[in-house]
Amino acid sequence: MSAADRLLALRIVLVAPSHPGNIGAAARAMLTMGLARLVLVRPRRFPDPEAIALASGATEVLDRAEVVATLDAAIAGCVAAVGLSARPREFAGRVLPVREAAAEAVAHAAHGDVALVFGTEMSGLSNAELAHCGIVATIPSNADYASLNLAAAVQVVAYELRVAATGGEVWRAPRFQPATVDEIEALYAHGTATLAAMRFLDPRMPKRLLPRLRRLFSRAALEKEEVNILRGILARVDQLLSRR
Amino acid sequence: MSAADRLLALRIVLVAPSHPGNIGAAARAMLTMGLARLVLVRPRRFPDPEAIALASGATEVLDRAEVVATLDAAIAGCVAAVGLSARPREFAGRVLPVREAAAEAVAHAAHGDVALVFGTEMSGLSNAELAHCGIVATIPSNADYASLNLAAAVQVVAYELRVAATGGEVWRAPRFQPATVDEIEALYAHGTATLAAMRFLDPRMPKRLLPRLRRLFSRAALEKEEVNILRGILARVDQLLSRR
Repeated sequence: MSAADRLLALRIVLVAPSHPGNIGAAARAMLTMGLARLVLVRPRRFPDPEAIALASGATEVLDRAEVVATLDAAIAGCVAAVGLSARPREFAGRVLPVREAAAEAVAHAAHGDVALVFGTEMSGLSNAELAHCGIVATIPSNADYASLNLAAAVQVVAYELRVAATGGEVWRAPRFQPATVDEIEALYAHGTATLAAMRFLDPRMPKRLLPRLRRLFSRAALEKEEVNILRGILARVDQLLSRR
Repeated sequence: MSAADRLLALRIVLVAPSHPGNIGAAARAMLTMGLARLVLVRPRRFPDPEAIALASGATEVLDRAEVVATLDAAIAGCVAAVGLSARPREFAGRVLPVREAAAEAVAHAAHGDVALVFGTEMSGLSNAELAHCGIVATIPSNADYASLNLAAAVQVVAYELRVAATGGEVWRAPRFQPATVDEIEALYAHGTATLAAMRFLDPRMPKRLLPRLRRLFSRAALEKEEVNILRGILARVDQLLSRR
């Protein structure tokens, strides 16, 4: 089962969202991470032009959103339901940081649909609603101001689900050809000779200059072309010195 | 240096943001994760009532936000600058997934201020701006729709910074007292006897029933009180059977 298929087995369930803008922003957050299935339980206003505006092109998620009357209907058929909660609760089943919960959700998604359930903007999920969720997920946050916006919470959860499903691969900088050990040693030899000729380095008392330069360049992991550039600079210095 | 102090050494830099709502939502996203230092490079509108509305109580971040004219001014004095980019670039220095970049940023924050730099809503950072950043961070996203909202991107980055700085600890469910091995074995013995008395289990041909029940309850990691409840149910069945 591909990572994309697992992401499509994940449902984002918003229970009684008040602001259509949050529904739209949640749809956008979902689609950026490859999620597509949105289920709305008793939304105050939906469909709504504000949802479409905030979805910013992710209207396919809104168009396919299901509207249902109860949380039970929203999570029907799922093999697992994960409820989000910022607040500590008395009876909350298994409580996991969102990263661990996302890994479990994606693992369950190999066997069937999985719901990620978010409560209202004002007060989150009720204890009765959370009781329907086998796992409670919490987004780490500042205890003095834990007021995550609903769509922002969906964004963080969707991001963690994507990383769990795909390994979080991103584009990498183009790979340049690394310099060989020989080329780097030749650079150091050239540099040492030139620094001595410049009388910046006293070969009889080199102190810590050369080790420091080696440390710098080894940390940078020199590329072939960079060695050529540095040797070009050294050669130019050599030339200037020879003209004096 | 405490985790909170490291978070306060991190600057969120927004280059030329167009929408004051995004500035406010970014401030809210920052404060939820314990970040407080916002620097705005040539914002189109700031201060602005829409920023205050979207900050939803995180106005202390807006009140202390610095407005500067250039990216150089925004990152002055920093020991590291991390630029966000969704798009692959030709020359982009080190490119890391946001999780790795956040870990590096927090490590650098032990030595001084670190900037996390975000470009404009429409086109992100220019190549010239990215060249000021030693690290380029990318948020993994859906290649077909990578349109993260600016404040949503700030939320994901701030979340990863918090997890990197604090280890991502969250509240956990209250710990109940686990049952001892003796109590659990006594439960199994009781259950076996009762199931036999109920003629649900044939003790001469137990098949896979008992191993399956053991598997279920061992997965659940029984607590003391749960063992008492289950034994209470068994005792009630025993009582009903003895009355027949």
